[in-house]
Amino acid sequence: MEIIQAKHLGFCFGVKRAIKISEKNPDSQIFGSIIHNNEEIKRLENDYHITIKQSIDEIDKTKKTIIRTHGIQKQDKEELDKKEVNVIDATCPFVHKSQNIAEDMSENGYQVVIFGDEIHPEVKSVASYANSTYTIVSSLDDLKDKIKLREIKTTKKIALISQTTKQIQKFKDIASYLIELSHEVRVFNTICNATFKNQKAAVELAKEVDTIVVIGGKNSSNTKQLFEICKKHTTSYLIENEDELNRDWFKETKRCGIVAGASTPDWIIKNIIEKLEKFDF
Amino acid sequence: MEIIQAKHLGFCFGVKRAIKISEKNPDSQIFGSIIHNNEEIKRLENDYHITIKQSIDEIDKTKKTIIRTHGIQKQDKEELDKKEVNVIDATCPFVHKSQNIAEDMSENGYQVVIFGDEIHPEVKSVASYANSTYTIVSSLDDLKDKIKLREIKTTKKIALISQTTKQIQKFKDIASYLIELSHEVRVFNTICNATFKNQKAAVELAKEVDTIVVIGGKNSSNTKQLFEICKKHTTSYLIENEDELNRDWFKETKRCGIVAGASTPDWIIKNIIEKLEKFDF
Repeated sequence: MEIIQAKHLGFCFGVKRAIKISEKNPDSQIFGSIIHNNEEIKRLENDYHITIKQSIDEIDKTKKTIIRTHGIQKQDKEELDKKEVNVIDATCPFVHKSQNIAEDMSENGYQVVIFGDEIHPEVKSVASYANSTYTIVSSLDDLKDKIKLREIKTTKKIALISQTTKQIQKFKDIASYLIELSHEVRVFNTICNATFKNQKAAVELAKEVDTIVVIGGKNSSNTKQLFEICKKHTTSYLIENEDELNRDWFKETKRCGIVAGASTPDWIIKNIIEKLEKFDF
Repeated sequence: MEIIQAKHLGFCFGVKRAIKISEKNPDSQIFGSIIHNNEEIKRLENDYHITIKQSIDEIDKTKKTIIRTHGIQKQDKEELDKKEVNVIDATCPFVHKSQNIAEDMSENGYQVVIFGDEIHPEVKSVASYANSTYTIVSSLDDLKDKIKLREIKTTKKIALISQTTKQIQKFKDIASYLIELSHEVRVFNTICNATFKNQKAAVELAKEVDTIVVIGGKNSSNTKQLFEICKKHTTSYLIENEDELNRDWFKETKRCGIVAGASTPDWIIKNIIEKLEKFDF
């Protein structure tokens, strides 16, 4: 069985940066999961004694506090500052950009429309900067519903931004629908290039192989999207680590593709490839 | 033969307003053709002694000067002001809006992209307010070429506007292409509702009749588009006045549709219908 990696896969710039910041600050605590990958979080806990805190009340003021890649909500940041917590910011610079756009547009009288998942920490964080003048839409249909319900008023000028890990075509469809109805739509393409490159490489690879192994956190937005994309083209499996690999999946496989989300560390990819090579079909 | 008029046809708000202004100012002169309809211009000349001047040098300072519906170029307006010409502005308020957007966006560091015909007076007028920081694109292919040639730089923030008489779908396709490549695209939907309504009504009517007569100036952008739309669905003829009607066109016609551009006056539509009724098939 031949094993072929996608041309682009794994860690994006923002995640690499956040992990480096964490490794440089052992014995610190992270406010929220630093990235959507449990394996990598375990490694940071074991090797660097870094702990995860899920709420501000749990924060230990005697230790440094790292802000995770997806960013935190504006009110939480203000709360940390008020408590004089020693904060180290590992928010992805692209998320910071979205936060700044949301804040700026809201202050300039725009209705901010965010294309994203409302429960995703990045979206929660970006939305919190729009000072209550925002609406989150998960799809074109959701947008249409929210216009009907007048949660989005097309008579107002609109600023449109996207969760960094969304698909560009869906974002363009949403923009297009708004453009027809509104006088002014200010479209900020905040979709991250790394996500786009990983998706494009996944499509190319999926067309060439019999089976695809998608590696990444099952709570990772961009990993889930990679899995959706691969499934359309070939038999695909989503796993978080090598223990989940099942020998039977590959009995008929001649060419096996490897794809990994933006929050998947190289060492997990390496472990999985090594185990796959041992199957030796 | 049954004669059926489109639900929306003829004069738009801006043209109605400009004609009224002209009628209230007999013995004046108009800088450029007030609207793209030679028949109506002849009527204003005959009944109101209004003359058309094609250049500033021809302007008679002793008379009032009306600015036409499509607007004039910024430098020409400044020249008229400098010469202290008594100006009456009949520019369509929607064109004024586009001029203001072009000027404002240009001053705020945006690269202004105008979807329109570069030789159309409205487009020339709007572009002149963008202080040389604009590019006119006639189609999606033209946009792609101009990006390749780096006449449009997608690394810069872009403001996109449209000639008021363009088709919305083509405008959305251009917006969509830019959104994928650029960080910020500020889309102003400056397409006039009247054009859209006339086009929609033309499509509906064209599906119901055997023959369509499109009435309007052969140099009118929106009339030409109506003709293009109608031709796709049924046998269509474009005429400027009743003298162009040919009895032979209607020999097989049971239902004849009437469609008219935004610069076509009611009296021309009426004359044509009267002549059609006399054919009496």
